[in-house]
Amino acid sequence: MPTGLFTDLYELTMAHSYFRRGLNQTATFAYFVRAPVPNRRFLLFAGLDPLLTALQDFRFTEEDLAYLDSLGLFAQDFLDFLGKLRFTGEIWAMEEGEICFPGEPLLLLTAPRIEAQLVETLTLNILNYETLVASKAARILLAAGPEAVVVDFSPRRDHGQEAALHAARASFLAGFHATSNTLAGRLYGIPVAGTMAHSYVMSFPDELSAFRAFAEDHPRPVLLIDTYDPIQGARNAVRVAQELWAKGKEIVAVRLDSGDLTALSQEVRRILDEAGFPNIKIFVSGDLDEYRIREFRERGGVAWGYGVGTRLGVSWDVPALGGVYKLVEDEKGPRMKTSPGKISLPGKCQVWRQEGFQDLVALDEETGEGRPLLRRVMAGGERLTPELDLSRRREEVRQVLFALPPTLADLTPAEAPSYPVEYSPGLRHLVTARR
Amino acid sequence: MPTGLFTDLYELTMAHSYFRRGLNQTATFAYFVRAPVPNRRFLLFAGLDPLLTALQDFRFTEEDLAYLDSLGLFAQDFLDFLGKLRFTGEIWAMEEGEICFPGEPLLLLTAPRIEAQLVETLTLNILNYETLVASKAARILLAAGPEAVVVDFSPRRDHGQEAALHAARASFLAGFHATSNTLAGRLYGIPVAGTMAHSYVMSFPDELSAFRAFAEDHPRPVLLIDTYDPIQGARNAVRVAQELWAKGKEIVAVRLDSGDLTALSQEVRRILDEAGFPNIKIFVSGDLDEYRIREFRERGGVAWGYGVGTRLGVSWDVPALGGVYKLVEDEKGPRMKTSPGKISLPGKCQVWRQEGFQDLVALDEETGEGRPLLRRVMAGGERLTPELDLSRRREEVRQVLFALPPTLADLTPAEAPSYPVEYSPGLRHLVTARR
Repeated sequence: MPTGLFTDLYELTMAHSYFRRGLNQTATFAYFVRAPVPNRRFLLFAGLDPLLTALQDFRFTEEDLAYLDSLGLFAQDFLDFLGKLRFTGEIWAMEEGEICFPGEPLLLLTAPRIEAQLVETLTLNILNYETLVASKAARILLAAGPEAVVVDFSPRRDHGQEAALHAARASFLAGFHATSNTLAGRLYGIPVAGTMAHSYVMSFPDELSAFRAFAEDHPRPVLLIDTYDPIQGARNAVRVAQELWAKGKEIVAVRLDSGDLTALSQEVRRILDEAGFPNIKIFVSGDLDEYRIREFRERGGVAWGYGVGTRLGVSWDVPALGGVYKLVEDEKGPRMKTSPGKISLPGKCQVWRQEGFQDLVALDEETGEGRPLLRRVMAGGERLTPELDLSRRREEVRQVLFALPPTLADLTPAEAPSYPVEYSPGLRHLVTARR
Repeated sequence: MPTGLFTDLYELTMAHSYFRRGLNQTATFAYFVRAPVPNRRFLLFAGLDPLLTALQDFRFTEEDLAYLDSLGLFAQDFLDFLGKLRFTGEIWAMEEGEICFPGEPLLLLTAPRIEAQLVETLTLNILNYETLVASKAARILLAAGPEAVVVDFSPRRDHGQEAALHAARASFLAGFHATSNTLAGRLYGIPVAGTMAHSYVMSFPDELSAFRAFAEDHPRPVLLIDTYDPIQGARNAVRVAQELWAKGKEIVAVRLDSGDLTALSQEVRRILDEAGFPNIKIFVSGDLDEYRIREFRERGGVAWGYGVGTRLGVSWDVPALGGVYKLVEDEKGPRMKTSPGKISLPGKCQVWRQEGFQDLVALDEETGEGRPLLRRVMAGGERLTPELDLSRRREEVRQVLFALPPTLADLTPAEAPSYPVEYSPGLRHLVTARR
């Protein structure tokens, strides 16, 4: 889909002015999060691949140009220029799934000023949302623990179908096991999972008939047991499991979606165990997030897996990431703006990750130590790296996530200056000199 | 875009079972919000037109079917059936822009059970988000007042490009004046607006040169005055206005985007007035929402208009609407589920709006009084009404909005049972009888 017109109008009026004045020299913009994010001790960078695809689709269609013409704001030569415009820039970025922090550049985009300006809205829109969801998903995984199966159930509450695709992708990248979103399964190769709804149970004369029918029609049945009474539901599940046993088939799990999940999970576990079905697992869902999963586990809840929907897909406690895209360098050198309470990082930088998540942001001309996090992924508008192998990267991210030091893995809000981001002498000098 | 595969996997496994068992009789599902929504004294229904379009695009592509086949869950005859499936149902719904409340059906969908089940995820995804944003936008308008110009600035923080289109549409429907989202302008005919960014100012040797250039290149310039020092910025704007005066051209407004907006707006107003430019307006932006706009006005802030972004597009204080889609009737009559804390509305209903926003939900066979809110908008999968005229409807919605009784217009949270939704004797009898 052509992405040129997905831009704030002011990008176009500014571009028009740059065009008229020949102000189209190379400029560099940095994407970063300015201030500590409440309730987030770290962020998980995501959205790069979708962004690179969108940049390769950057163009204005005939309809777009006719519409812009109708606004009466733009000269014809500028519209002709837009009609031929493609994204030709260079991008340095962190790898998707990288643990990252406010105050450090996550992506640097260098392009002729007009291109760089026109793709601002698109860049922010994609990176802000995927990074937001990946960061939330990481916390949910930390609460659930490395043994639990965690599934994205968010599509019905996400902000549109595209948001649901991003949510499935970003949560899988962070380490989720599957999504209920069938389209995301097809598009991204994410495993899909699902059970049954209350309406299915209600479509049969009684719960037992519904369970029998579903178990017959599904190769790996998971039975939702709380349409009427969850305890009776568990007993009905046992009865069907006994019937299936004779045929060499099994109930995989039962699902609880309402009520006091902790107490119910314990009682259902007892019913299943006493009936001789310790292998039937318990899957819980219903307005879960990292806080509720932590509480569920602390109170002794028993679950093999969690379905997480609404509070994942909208990142309930922090529903938007305030990432910004700021001019950091142009033909006149490093740039920054100085209005109250808002700072910028002047100049092109590298982020060096040092032992134990201590990051150093240093100017390109300075030498850093540690692992450089920004890699060149696009040049001349062409991708330099193959598309991300989500499944492989997910494994790596899970390993990093479940080995995080307690200061980062802790789910409580951090003390104020807990982000371990340092600035190099060269960068500090530049900031001080410009103030 | 084909929408069949945008569904939770369990809709497909349930549908597969219905198909195998010939359980494809007509069923009716209701879309409604169960419980009072914190911080929302009313909701504004939105998203119907996008939903009807999506339902008309309901189909499975060859790629979709090949993918489903690869999952090993579905029989070939079911996949063949899906390949031919279109949405053929009937829909009764409130008009977009209708003030509405939790506990009443906003939409009823009647179709063969399999179709009705498969479109659940899509229906919830679209209606939940547009209704969420329209409801938030209505509150922002109430805070800004009927005289203020309010513009959607949300695209960079919305959850994807599609979310940004929905946000522009729903906020315009609620009564916003414009959007910064150029693509939304083209697709929905919404007026587009925008000023300039800090990076534009920084692209010139100094602020004054930037202002002069922009005023020359833009027919209706709005100058952003807080890149460096907003007071000096206001003086620079005055200087450019004086220069333009000689040429018969004007500065439309100045924009403040940071700092203490209330105090700055007063000081900038004084500077503009004293320089003889009472017609230059002040536009403010920067993490605004209804609470901040109300405080800004109460503290004496002076603004002609407001740009509202992040907190509109993600509905910051309530980032998801928990609308549900429940089976209410099938070939066996009215249906409801009874698990703890979750109730349903059994049977097909009408919502009657009576004097002063007292709503009565009554069974179809009962006669109600007042204005019936649910209208038949689709039958046999075909739209019965033309596409909504957004601009016309926006005018009507604004009139209703700014004439709301104080109990609804108040921005503070309502006392618990404040929603004026009553249930008819027939409905109450049905619920009691089934408990």
